[in-house]
Amino acid sequence: MSYTLKEIQQLLEDSLQEEEIIREPRRLYEPIEYTMATGGKRLRPSLLLLACNLYKKDVTAAMSAALGIEFFHNFTLLHDDIMDKAHTRRNQPTVHAKWNDNVAILSGDAMFIKAYEYLLKTQTPNYRKMLEVFNTTAMEVCEGQQYDMDFEDRQVVSEAEYLEMIRLKTAVLLAAALKMGALAGDAPAADADKLYRFGLNLGLGFQLQDDYLDVFGDPKVFGKKIGGDICANKKTFLLIKALELAEGDDQEELQSWLERKEFEPEEKIKAVKTLYHKLHIADITRTKIHEFHRKAMDALSQLELEKEAVKELEVLAQKLIDRSS
Amino acid sequence: MSYTLKEIQQLLEDSLQEEEIIREPRRLYEPIEYTMATGGKRLRPSLLLLACNLYKKDVTAAMSAALGIEFFHNFTLLHDDIMDKAHTRRNQPTVHAKWNDNVAILSGDAMFIKAYEYLLKTQTPNYRKMLEVFNTTAMEVCEGQQYDMDFEDRQVVSEAEYLEMIRLKTAVLLAAALKMGALAGDAPAADADKLYRFGLNLGLGFQLQDDYLDVFGDPKVFGKKIGGDICANKKTFLLIKALELAEGDDQEELQSWLERKEFEPEEKIKAVKTLYHKLHIADITRTKIHEFHRKAMDALSQLELEKEAVKELEVLAQKLIDRSS
Repeated sequence: MSYTLKEIQQLLEDSLQEEEIIREPRRLYEPIEYTMATGGKRLRPSLLLLACNLYKKDVTAAMSAALGIEFFHNFTLLHDDIMDKAHTRRNQPTVHAKWNDNVAILSGDAMFIKAYEYLLKTQTPNYRKMLEVFNTTAMEVCEGQQYDMDFEDRQVVSEAEYLEMIRLKTAVLLAAALKMGALAGDAPAADADKLYRFGLNLGLGFQLQDDYLDVFGDPKVFGKKIGGDICANKKTFLLIKALELAEGDDQEELQSWLERKEFEPEEKIKAVKTLYHKLHIADITRTKIHEFHRKAMDALSQLELEKEAVKELEVLAQKLIDRSS
Repeated sequence: MSYTLKEIQQLLEDSLQEEEIIREPRRLYEPIEYTMATGGKRLRPSLLLLACNLYKKDVTAAMSAALGIEFFHNFTLLHDDIMDKAHTRRNQPTVHAKWNDNVAILSGDAMFIKAYEYLLKTQTPNYRKMLEVFNTTAMEVCEGQQYDMDFEDRQVVSEAEYLEMIRLKTAVLLAAALKMGALAGDAPAADADKLYRFGLNLGLGFQLQDDYLDVFGDPKVFGKKIGGDICANKKTFLLIKALELAEGDDQEELQSWLERKEFEPEEKIKAVKTLYHKLHIADITRTKIHEFHRKAMDALSQLELEKEAVKELEVLAQKLIDRSS
């Protein structure tokens, strides 16, 4: 029998609860526990365990790899928050805001080492392969973060460049989680690659949904303030498309909002949203999200497994592109 | 035939030269190349290859692990320099000074991942064991760095606490380099442990020699300014011993120099050095260094290998505690 997503999430939380993270020196380990306790979707370890579960009833052997990838993901958030000078995440102060930059740098490093500690415990004949997938992915995530920062200083970013950036920064880690889960489940190599492709397209759609919700989300459900990306001139899929499509007065107006140093946030958000409506940016974005979703489903359908087994992954994928928070 | 230290160092430099580090995005990889090109002693990879060479004529199989440990060491320096706000290292601007903090954080992370990339390439039946030794050590190095920062905010640090800090921050990495080299050379586990003990004591002596040179080194040879630790009130072995031994007027004078916010560096250095002379701090430190050296040699002598084979390690150990720069 395979687990439901809910059961997988429960197994994960139980395992995380059991971990005793804090030891001496406390200043190194407390921020790690703090970060892991703030929750989040636990999406990557869930994908890893669900993928493993396609091939093995017992996912115990994959649990340490699942914890490893969750620690890694949280490490990247911790260091990204220093670089982005972000003061809150998941409605709590970030580590560098609560302690200081030095604590955030070093406990981040330790968190990454802890990720490896969990990964190295995994028992599988695919041990070497699994570590290589993880490490290559970790480097890609750094490359994605660097491109993201590079884009801040650039006037023009193309759609292709943007998609490549989010492939690296976000999508490859979801893909790697699925592939590592398959490897931990001793899946055939071809299956592991198909699951990777499923995850990659899922990740691209997932990030576009993030961009979409920042503008068109319901403020009561979204959790974050709507329009944050607009105020910060963040080069999201929506802004890149708008810059590509706007002509004449629309183009001038959009440009003037991007250049204005002082503005009322609400006024700027409203004006840019109006332009987005005029340019059908919401539809264009949703079409793109559905395109990635279709590609993800296509990869999944190529697995020669029973329909029932992959159902949880299908449900999860649907949830991710339909989510409102 | 075994290699001499000089030959090992040449092999290392040749391998490093062959590596093509820079790729896109350049801002991520350029600081890594910059850091690796500034040189340094290449002590840790040399120890790793020498240890491997005790068991295998051909050290090729251990080269990627050697590069991995050198990348890791340089990663720790890169992040430490941000935390310590150090502007020069090896007579060159540090990465955060030349670029900025964000570049230094992210390229440091990438450098750590690169270290793993090399380690994961190692071909040995001891693969898992070798990775575990490395990862445990990496965490200990972080713990050492955290203790070092914690000590800055403390009035009193005991000799035992200090030795434990430098064991973690410095000694374990030398020890791990030797153990990993032995493992890559398929050495018996007991030998790998003896080499670890050799490296641990070598590392403790090595750090005390650093402390010693900062005060008693020859400014023409030392490379750094003499007395930097004294000006910064750094809790080195020398200061800890002086605080432990000083009585009456000496104690008062030392304390007043530590508390003074404004001072002429040369005057403070001269005064503290005079106190150190009175308290025989140089002799006490040298005695301690020789004690660690003796323990290191003792561990080495327990290896049941030909005298000739371990000679290069003995020579290197002697050099490290006699060095003047």
